[in-house]
Amino acid sequence: MRTYRLVIACPDRMGIVAKVSNVLSTYNGWITEANHHSDNLTGWFFMRHEIRADSLPFDLDGFRRVFAPIAEEFGMHWHINDSAVRKKVVLMASKESHCLADLLHRWHSGELDCDIVSVISNHDDLRSMVEWHGIPFYHVPVDPKDKTPAFAEVTRLIEEQQADCVVLARYMQILPPQLCQRFAHRIINIHHSFLPSFVGARPYHQAAQRGVKLIGATCHYVTEELDAGPIIEQDVARISHRQNVEDMVRLGKDVEKMVLSRGLRYHLEDRVLVHDNKTVVFS
Amino acid sequence: MRTYRLVIACPDRMGIVAKVSNVLSTYNGWITEANHHSDNLTGWFFMRHEIRADSLPFDLDGFRRVFAPIAEEFGMHWHINDSAVRKKVVLMASKESHCLADLLHRWHSGELDCDIVSVISNHDDLRSMVEWHGIPFYHVPVDPKDKTPAFAEVTRLIEEQQADCVVLARYMQILPPQLCQRFAHRIINIHHSFLPSFVGARPYHQAAQRGVKLIGATCHYVTEELDAGPIIEQDVARISHRQNVEDMVRLGKDVEKMVLSRGLRYHLEDRVLVHDNKTVVFS
Amino acid sequence: MRTYRLVIACPDRMGIVAKVSNVLSTYNGWITEANHHSDNLTGWFFMRHEIRADSLPFDLDGFRRVFAPIAEEFGMHWHINDSAVRKKVVLMASKESHCLADLLHRWHSGELDCDIVSVISNHDDLRSMVEWHGIPFYHVPVDPKDKTPAFAEVTRLIEEQQADCVVLARYMQILPPQLCQRFAHRIINIHHSFLPSFVGARPYHQAAQRGVKLIGATCHYVTEELDAGPIIEQDVARISHRQNVEDMVRLGKDVEKMVLSRGLRYHLEDRVLVHDNKTVVFS
Amino acid sequence: MRTYRLVIACPDRMGIVAKVSNVLSTYNGWITEANHHSDNLTGWFFMRHEIRADSLPFDLDGFRRVFAPIAEEFGMHWHINDSAVRKKVVLMASKESHCLADLLHRWHSGELDCDIVSVISNHDDLRSMVEWHGIPFYHVPVDPKDKTPAFAEVTRLIEEQQADCVVLARYMQILPPQLCQRFAHRIINIHHSFLPSFVGARPYHQAAQRGVKLIGATCHYVTEELDAGPIIEQDVARISHRQNVEDMVRLGKDVEKMVLSRGLRYHLEDRVLVHDNKTVVFS
Repeated sequence: MRTYRLVIACPDRMGIVAKVSNVLSTYNGWITEANHHSDNLTGWFFMRHEIRADSLPFDLDGFRRVFAPIAEEFGMHWHINDSAVRKKVVLMASKESHCLADLLHRWHSGELDCDIVSVISNHDDLRSMVEWHGIPFYHVPVDPKDKTPAFAEVTRLIEEQQADCVVLARYMQILPPQLCQRFAHRIINIHHSFLPSFVGARPYHQAAQRGVKLIGATCHYVTEELDAGPIIEQDVARISHRQNVEDMVRLGKDVEKMVLSRGLRYHLEDRVLVHDNKTVVFS
Repeated sequence: MRTYRLVIACPDRMGIVAKVSNVLSTYNGWITEANHHSDNLTGWFFMRHEIRADSLPFDLDGFRRVFAPIAEEFGMHWHINDSAVRKKVVLMASKESHCLADLLHRWHSGELDCDIVSVISNHDDLRSMVEWHGIPFYHVPVDPKDKTPAFAEVTRLIEEQQADCVVLARYMQILPPQLCQRFAHRIINIHHSFLPSFVGARPYHQAAQRGVKLIGATCHYVTEELDAGPIIEQDVARISHRQNVEDMVRLGKDVEKMVLSRGLRYHLEDRVLVHDNKTVVFS
Repeated sequence: MRTYRLVIACPDRMGIVAKVSNVLSTYNGWITEANHHSDNLTGWFFMRHEIRADSLPFDLDGFRRVFAPIAEEFGMHWHINDSAVRKKVVLMASKESHCLADLLHRWHSGELDCDIVSVISNHDDLRSMVEWHGIPFYHVPVDPKDKTPAFAEVTRLIEEQQADCVVLARYMQILPPQLCQRFAHRIINIHHSFLPSFVGARPYHQAAQRGVKLIGATCHYVTEELDAGPIIEQDVARISHRQNVEDMVRLGKDVEKMVLSRGLRYHLEDRVLVHDNKTVVFS
Repeated sequence: MRTYRLVIACPDRMGIVAKVSNVLSTYNGWITEANHHSDNLTGWFFMRHEIRADSLPFDLDGFRRVFAPIAEEFGMHWHINDSAVRKKVVLMASKESHCLADLLHRWHSGELDCDIVSVISNHDDLRSMVEWHGIPFYHVPVDPKDKTPAFAEVTRLIEEQQADCVVLARYMQILPPQLCQRFAHRIINIHHSFLPSFVGARPYHQAAQRGVKLIGATCHYVTEELDAGPIIEQDVARISHRQNVEDMVRLGKDVEKMVLSRGLRYHLEDRVLVHDNKTVVFS
């Protein structure tokens, strides 16, 4: 069923819900899902509606004209998306295939509602897997001595393909600050630890060193500061003394896949609202 | 913060949210939490609002007068409760203390927002624990040959104490049908299995017999049919071949306590809406 | 590292461990992992050792000759396998790809230590996915009016390929009793419910009907009685009123994949011992 | 059933298991549970046996005499405990009652196999709860300007009562280094975060600040370095944007109780072996 997704964040005050639901009701908008959240700490209000597209007498532009005055009155940050307009996603990977294969299969079986426009990798290993899915594969090697040309090419590809969203599916390279800024809240990373524990390289080795009893993974938006962006989703798996680092890597892969695919799904369905460095996720 | 909790279930149609939020907005009602659910299968709509009591210009009766026409217009099943009016709860137990002690401690430490008006038990074992908490304890033995007098006395006590809610904290006796009917959706039971598996007696023995790898517990409203009422909450714990029935009983206790206290909390906060034999839980 | 896996089940009595570890010690066997379990209920003892192959002065046949007298003395059911001899696995699937794709990727990335000798399906849909992995695909349609020819062909293929193990990766057909018996404890199924709840067809619909708060999956050995074989592994995922049957199917897929791949891994590594209708899993 | 628990850690080499099981077999020791672990990283071997006390022809001292030569030969760190000799435990608490009440109830209902010899607290609030259980309560206030007298008194009490184990059930004071050293691997703390995240004060506030999607708790041995000792057990609970710090505190309490009681149970049953700063837990 085709829906419009209306997503709003604004300073909290009386009457927001009434005003928004009145507009929707006036035009006979059929709400299929509604979520609200008042954040006491920041005094902000967050709201998401799914509205049946066929219940409204206008298209997105029509909606925007009708809604703009309300949005202005309440100082809203807002957007409305059409579920029928699939987001364009660029996947970035390195040599490890588990997250990439998982996302490709979900996409291929119709579970992930987006267009995967390309896969960019700094290695050529996963080309055949990607191309079997009918998706273009770009091999952009990264020269450790001068990464600038590689990231210029990556940026060029992302822009050329008009990506709405970039997913770092275990890409293993740190993106330059300009790229992080230009695509703020549109680059999703999976980090293989339960952040803020074990930031940076080799988190499973760090976990083994510390002797933790659970390992985790964190899906977050990429910001300039490494592994410090707004967290979208996290999960953990139990380990014991019997698991060495190799076992942790293997068990961790399953957590990474699950957490990344859930986080991406929330993002694609406009369920994630970022405020300061935190997220509201209407899952 | 004192709130009113407005809980609504009605056939789904356009304009419900607008109508309700308009009323609230008209009287400057400050919504601190709102939840909606449209059930596609049954075509029903469920809704719960928490509204700051001090933001409205009238008390509950005033609200009811204002709201009654809308409720009638939409064919609503509805109620509104005042968070400052604590529900009266009767706990029923037998010899096992884990669920009772857990609820008593949560109540004693202020975590469970209700008045525990009494504990009724078919055994006298837990009297001292209950009385230390300053709660009256009633020992009502159940004669296996004729249970009628005992349940007459139980019913009398519940009514005398004007209980809003009865919690079977491992009471181990099957309530008579009339009692189930009279307090429909107000008697909460904890069953020590992941229902619908292992209905009836000795579920951990049944679980051991079947060789399951997880054991569970189920919090549900009591109906005439044994262990078949609407489920409020469930959870599980992992076991292996190493756990015998005694271990399962011990591990299961922790699941039972958690599940019962969560389910009761949802009920006390008017978060559970029953429709047919299922629940909507706005947790 | 190449190991021998010595797996033993026998009536419990004094001295078993001493006897077995003495033999291993006498021949300088280097034990890398050891697990024991005494089952009080049945009076049976279960034991699994991994021994570095290069630490022993003989091959498997040599070991068997040395060990046979001990095995006889204690009435052992036992076998020893070489980790370097990969088990031959036949996967069976229908139209749903999630379990199959998951197993194929785990195998392809080296995580699943076996030879997948073929995929047999009653539909042709997944051929391309299978063949991309370099694995033969057999389309054996099942005529609902007469299933005998199909299962004769399936049996022929399994035997021709000398499969050690058959995995029903959402095959959706009930195997005939003779097949179940011939490959007892070697056919692994994934059932999409937390058994013994929701045996048979359309378990997610049954779960939605009952209003459970968790859905699950069960990996078990196939026996003649439907969904009643020894359970190897189970897990669950949380749902709420917001999830309809389609959501449950989607969320359930992830549980199914995880549970099946874990169960198969345990089987491939000779970690599952069946006794009566239950399993000891030395995970 | 009364058992002896034989716990061994030593450099790994051939023949340890054979030697140990031979001794046990020689004296007709009936092993009810056995666990082994070879740690590849450190080259150490860990082993725990439970042996029926009534199957051996001698008492603990007799066992020690027989076993000493083997222990010396293999350079073992080892001890053997009698399950019938309950460990003496001192609980330390502050004002928060949830962990204390949980441990007291488990002990009172026979689930926790130890003697709780006293409760020491820097506040007098929980006296009545403790004394209802028949356990002496010591109020030892801590002067923030000079903590030395308080910890001298605490140390004196612990020694006077010959405690085998001290449990900090949310004691909220940092123990002085000498105390940590004197009772190394015998003081158990519950920290209300998933360590190594959120070391130190107010971890739930830190968690809210970072916007994590899971909160956790960690049971660990206390060392001189704050929240850095060997981890015994950890667990987590899911949260979302809807939970504020107060909710996190409430939800966290349940995780803390579970994790502390599990960790303590492992310790009491001699299931925890510490090596370097990590634990082997034969749970």
